[in-house]
Amino acid sequence: MNKHTVDPNMQHFTRKQALKPSTFLSPVPVVMVTCGSMEKPNIITLAWAGTVNSEPPMLSISVRKSRYSHSLIRERGTFGVNLVSQGLCWETDYCGVKSGRDVDKFKDTGLTCVASPELSIPMIAEAPVHLECKVREVLELGSHDLFIADIAGVQVAEALMDRKGAVDMRKADLVAYNHGEYYSLGKILGFFGYSIAGKDVLKRRKRTRLKEGS
Amino acid sequence: MNKHTVDPNMQHFTRKQALKPSTFLSPVPVVMVTCGSMEKPNIITLAWAGTVNSEPPMLSISVRKSRYSHSLIRERGTFGVNLVSQGLCWETDYCGVKSGRDVDKFKDTGLTCVASPELSIPMIAEAPVHLECKVREVLELGSHDLFIADIAGVQVAEALMDRKGAVDMRKADLVAYNHGEYYSLGKILGFFGYSIAGKDVLKRRKRTRLKEGS
Repeated sequence: MNKHTVDPNMQHFTRKQALKPSTFLSPVPVVMVTCGSMEKPNIITLAWAGTVNSEPPMLSISVRKSRYSHSLIRERGTFGVNLVSQGLCWETDYCGVKSGRDVDKFKDTGLTCVASPELSIPMIAEAPVHLECKVREVLELGSHDLFIADIAGVQVAEALMDRKGAVDMRKADLVAYNHGEYYSLGKILGFFGYSIAGKDVLKRRKRTRLKEGS
Repeated sequence: MNKHTVDPNMQHFTRKQALKPSTFLSPVPVVMVTCGSMEKPNIITLAWAGTVNSEPPMLSISVRKSRYSHSLIRERGTFGVNLVSQGLCWETDYCGVKSGRDVDKFKDTGLTCVASPELSIPMIAEAPVHLECKVREVLELGSHDLFIADIAGVQVAEALMDRKGAVDMRKADLVAYNHGEYYSLGKILGFFGYSIAGKDVLKRRKRTRLKEGS
């Protein structure tokens, strides 16, 4: 490779101060997790969630033992992950601060509950992507239990697909969580592999971007 | 609460199609994980990473067994998480597509290697935040091994702190990963609890935002 130079602005960050250890990883996802039965469904918003395996596809969520949803997920062994679009940000926050013990979150938010096709999990119709999850293992870590789950079903909004069925997640306008605040995604900085891509690939990707108008 | 109505644009997403199960959770973090010794350090970029516990603070990373960094982390039982600012996006991509078996990533990227204060892990000086991690448990999930780790030390760039020592993560310009593309964070949509906040809190938050000029 040619000699690479780090952006000199990054020197700005080299002087550090030690802080008390805490959960500083950022940005993180924010998702609405659905659980319980179709008759008595609940929604809990979580940011402690992540992909943990590719083949087979698995994700994990961490839930405090004291939360109402904890026992629902523990008992049924299934939960739904509903990705969050900008238009669902208010509902997402509401489902993170209220408890299903006190309120009916579907009723309060006006969100529509639909049964998922594989595992009949209550899901949020308005969410752009549904992941049906089946718990494989639960680890007690301290304040939270870590639920490691297989992704048993995926449903994606047709509005995110082109004529050939390819999914364009940019159209989902997803929300990220950064240190207590919800953010839209901003500009695209690059694609996986762009640092070593040839000129032809870079040109083709740029053309696709322009055609899609973003 | 007052009657809430879901944004009617969200109806757009209700028609769904089932896809083959895959790792659809998004957006996810993207971090440069450092490992190995100070004499022979390595960097691996990961998006399968997340916070898994609050008290005590823990995070997890998933690494393919075949990756060079896998054995380094396994052997030493420690690794560093370096958060990624926009100005480090190229280096982040490069450290995700190249192997430490073939190249010296610190040398190729020009990034500066510094030893962390608690566990002497090689870290990236230019990253805005360092998390020193000590492996607690390793789970073999299939393609990836899940490393669950205690966050034993946190160092934050002084440039992110105000005079009172409060950290403003907005100044870190962090990068998110969404379905194969790197994104800047866009506009702030709300803060945790804003859906039920009183008028006084909303006003105060808005004023703080203006003062900080973002």
